[in-house]
Amino acid sequence: MKTAIIGTGNMGAGLARRLAGKRDLILASRNGAAAKSIAEEIGSSSAPIATAVAEADIVVLALPYGSALEFAGSEALEGKILIDITNPLKPDFSGLLFANETSAAEQIQSNAKGAKVVKAFNTIFAELFAASPDQTVTIPVFLAGDEDAVEISAALVRDAGFAVEKIGSLDAARLLEPLGMLNIRLGYGLGRGTRIAPKWAVVQG
Amino acid sequence: MKTAIIGTGNMGAGLARRLAGKRDLILASRNGAAAKSIAEEIGSSSAPIATAVAEADIVVLALPYGSALEFAGSEALEGKILIDITNPLKPDFSGLLFANETSAAEQIQSNAKGAKVVKAFNTIFAELFAASPDQTVTIPVFLAGDEDAVEISAALVRDAGFAVEKIGSLDAARLLEPLGMLNIRLGYGLGRGTRIAPKWAVVQG
Repeated sequence: MKTAIIGTGNMGAGLARRLAGKRDLILASRNGAAAKSIAEEIGSSSAPIATAVAEADIVVLALPYGSALEFAGSEALEGKILIDITNPLKPDFSGLLFANETSAAEQIQSNAKGAKVVKAFNTIFAELFAASPDQTVTIPVFLAGDEDAVEISAALVRDAGFAVEKIGSLDAARLLEPLGMLNIRLGYGLGRGTRIAPKWAVVQG
Repeated sequence: MKTAIIGTGNMGAGLARRLAGKRDLILASRNGAAAKSIAEEIGSSSAPIATAVAEADIVVLALPYGSALEFAGSEALEGKILIDITNPLKPDFSGLLFANETSAAEQIQSNAKGAKVVKAFNTIFAELFAASPDQTVTIPVFLAGDEDAVEISAALVRDAGFAVEKIGSLDAARLLEPLGMLNIRLGYGLGRGTRIAPKWAVVQG
């Protein structure tokens, strides 16, 4: 299976480095030079966006929400698994554009005809990709979407050095995106930094 | 300071047992016999609801959302700290009645004239109150509300054997309630059980 990563910001580049040597990767970005540079660094390939999408089975949208939504509506994604990592932040980062009634993942799905959207990585700060995988192997990536698509995406999550926490169908993104927003608030507004991540503890006794 | 706990369901009774001997407690419920029975068990007092509220500085609403909202609009709460532990679940438990635009905590605040509402304990399953406090001392209770009221409530949280995680002003309940809903979904729908709780991990290295 070939995985395209679209976007070479902190999330895209960080995930690409985590998956290098474990996945057949193809990197793409509007900034083609950045994609080429990171691809060379990690020994993978890069291509124009349309080519990367055409060749890939899994397309990771490492883009802000607005760009991801536009991408989903303009590229040929039939039959692809589309991984949405976004949090639909308000322009001033004070909260989410929406929640509860819909989600970024569902909005992207409604644009991405014939693709299966999976929500993932939206509670993972880019800085965690720079940590040793030994340190993140118990940190969950929360997954929501079509069951088969989630199963395929779960293998990618494990290859990236994270634990898998399946939350159900895509509408569970209505809860995962507020969790992502709370994570951002804790990390930035409340000064906990960007080495944190939400997980569930099990209480004994 | 006197703390009234209103409601003798699993949450109210569990919290009362946790606070017994550490707080000056007064228990009250529409089911006065249940309040009396639990008060006798833990060596605290019980009273009719209006009396308990009148005597207390802190009033914990251990009630479902609808009842808590009604309570907030009908009792004399001027000058009290009102702790709201609810998640505003849809009748079929499939999700929240609302989120993002408002929260149960803010709805309760709008009814509770002259009181300061603090959001707390909405991500804590009642079963955790039965665990040893040693096992929950690192489990966070997320607090949102007026800064002084949160500080006073934080002492109660610590007395109950939990860690304190302050999230900001009351509108942060718009994120904490979806977190409570996700906790419920993981615990029940996804079979993780009711010994779980969300917390934030810090990644090293």
